[in-house]
Amino acid sequence: MIRHAVCLDLGGTNLKGGIVSDRGEFSHHQSLPSEVEKGPEQILHNLKTLASILLRDAEKDSIPIQGIGVSTPGIIDTDFGGLTGGAVNLPGWQNTPFMKVLFEEFHIPVFAHNDVTATALGEAAYGAGVGRNHVIMASVGTGIGGGIIINGKLYEGATGYAGEIGHIVTFAGGHMCNCGVKGCWEEYAALRGIMRTTQEHLDRDTRRESAIFSTRDKEEELTPRIVFDAAREGDRVALNIVDEIGSNTAVGLGSLINIFDPDMVIIGGGIAEAGDIYLNAIKTHIPGWSLPDSREGVEIVLAKLGSKAGIFGASALVFGDINRYMR
Amino acid sequence: MIRHAVCLDLGGTNLKGGIVSDRGEFSHHQSLPSEVEKGPEQILHNLKTLASILLRDAEKDSIPIQGIGVSTPGIIDTDFGGLTGGAVNLPGWQNTPFMKVLFEEFHIPVFAHNDVTATALGEAAYGAGVGRNHVIMASVGTGIGGGIIINGKLYEGATGYAGEIGHIVTFAGGHMCNCGVKGCWEEYAALRGIMRTTQEHLDRDTRRESAIFSTRDKEEELTPRIVFDAAREGDRVALNIVDEIGSNTAVGLGSLINIFDPDMVIIGGGIAEAGDIYLNAIKTHIPGWSLPDSREGVEIVLAKLGSKAGIFGASALVFGDINRYMR
Repeated sequence: MIRHAVCLDLGGTNLKGGIVSDRGEFSHHQSLPSEVEKGPEQILHNLKTLASILLRDAEKDSIPIQGIGVSTPGIIDTDFGGLTGGAVNLPGWQNTPFMKVLFEEFHIPVFAHNDVTATALGEAAYGAGVGRNHVIMASVGTGIGGGIIINGKLYEGATGYAGEIGHIVTFAGGHMCNCGVKGCWEEYAALRGIMRTTQEHLDRDTRRESAIFSTRDKEEELTPRIVFDAAREGDRVALNIVDEIGSNTAVGLGSLINIFDPDMVIIGGGIAEAGDIYLNAIKTHIPGWSLPDSREGVEIVLAKLGSKAGIFGASALVFGDINRYMR
Repeated sequence: MIRHAVCLDLGGTNLKGGIVSDRGEFSHHQSLPSEVEKGPEQILHNLKTLASILLRDAEKDSIPIQGIGVSTPGIIDTDFGGLTGGAVNLPGWQNTPFMKVLFEEFHIPVFAHNDVTATALGEAAYGAGVGRNHVIMASVGTGIGGGIIINGKLYEGATGYAGEIGHIVTFAGGHMCNCGVKGCWEEYAALRGIMRTTQEHLDRDTRRESAIFSTRDKEEELTPRIVFDAAREGDRVALNIVDEIGSNTAVGLGSLINIFDPDMVIIGGGIAEAGDIYLNAIKTHIPGWSLPDSREGVEIVLAKLGSKAGIFGASALVFGDINRYMR
């Protein structure tokens, strides 16, 4: 029998939801503003509202629902039924036992997990990683989040904190990371590192012929998108920047490949929206930062599910019985 | 019923063997010279000789033997029944299907694995890691080998090459590693790195009061042992060197802790024979190279089994049905 889950993905801007089957069929897409700025009570209210809409839809269409899955920023404590540590951009959310509340409201098993982890699970189960057993997912954005799938299962470590791949120290003694360590990978390969690399190249470039200059000179904010777009147009400086971004990203991925000998590495997150020019720059540099035996046979690909990965990940929680709220 | 295995540990100098029970009782210790210099036929002959001695002893003492476990340098191919890739210091060994030969000779299941991996299994099952589920073992010697135990089981990756932790790139762009990559962890934290650090400190030290100088001036070869011994005596220069060794080692271990969130990290190998002064230098620097949430609760300890870890590891292969020769 096909199983179905009501899936919710709580982001900083939108709360997305839908019904997902264990075959990866997605339906009944719904979206509400998260209204994070109105505080945890409003977020909780919106979660309940979206869940009840989807459960009603399911009932109307005679779809039995196995559980509610939630992807959320932060680290879930299933005893508490929510976050006990903080989540950036969601003040107060760490004191809201939303899993407990949803369970008591709807009397259906509730599962929840960190959004980066859920995204990795979604990609592994229904996206780029289908059929792969050993998958490392790197979500590159402001930082680099990780999801580790080993023998087809999520690896969470002894206390649930595994996967902090952004804090592999690749440039020991280098730039200070937000975490207080000098030289973390994400300080070089994620947003801040990309913009620093860009600035360094612009500072060195005396010909000032790059299209990036005109953007900067108009006092528009430089973004990775501007750099990747310029590179795609053949802009010489931008191509050099993208090449260095590729190398800085390959340093950490190469280390992960040497450690895990995975069959697939999936690169997702906001930066990966740059697409093939980004992927190819990384792939070019992987041989320079990994062992031949370890990297042989590893496929390095971009994430496939885009903004739906969190919802699919939420369904993987339900179908995989991962992080169930224990009443 | 207690199970028993005949266990062989093939090293560059000696071939060691014994009978190990699944409760970790070790008996019937035997040792032969490996005679590596006489080539693979002689090594194979010695392996067979030691196995037959131990099997005869077992029969005499009415101990039923479940299997033969072998710890050897190199990467095992269980289809071939030996190594298909090379092993440093064992020329020709990659063409010797020793597992097949032992099986056909004694008609007992034969299991074999890489020595670093076997050592990690031995420490996890019968040494420092007893009762731990998520264990990272780092064997620090000429390089740094790794063993990854996840959910109580050996993690080998998609193609058997997982655990190349010595080649995490911690100092990207730094000193050239034997593998061709600039900045691998083992180039800083293993033998060559320790001796380079020592040399740098000696070069900088104008007072020339350190005991290490007198050793060097006598044209004796400098070794890590001399440095650690001097540090233990309170030698100022040696203490600074050991502190830097501790930091260089903690960079990689901190990264592994952030990735795996293990419950234990075991440090073994020749360098770890320096003991507590080495361990404490590493532990001092772990907070500087890891996240608080990830390192909390991780115990960092020295290996316990010493030169017997390979034999115990060979028994773990047999009892865990790992890397069985498939005839």
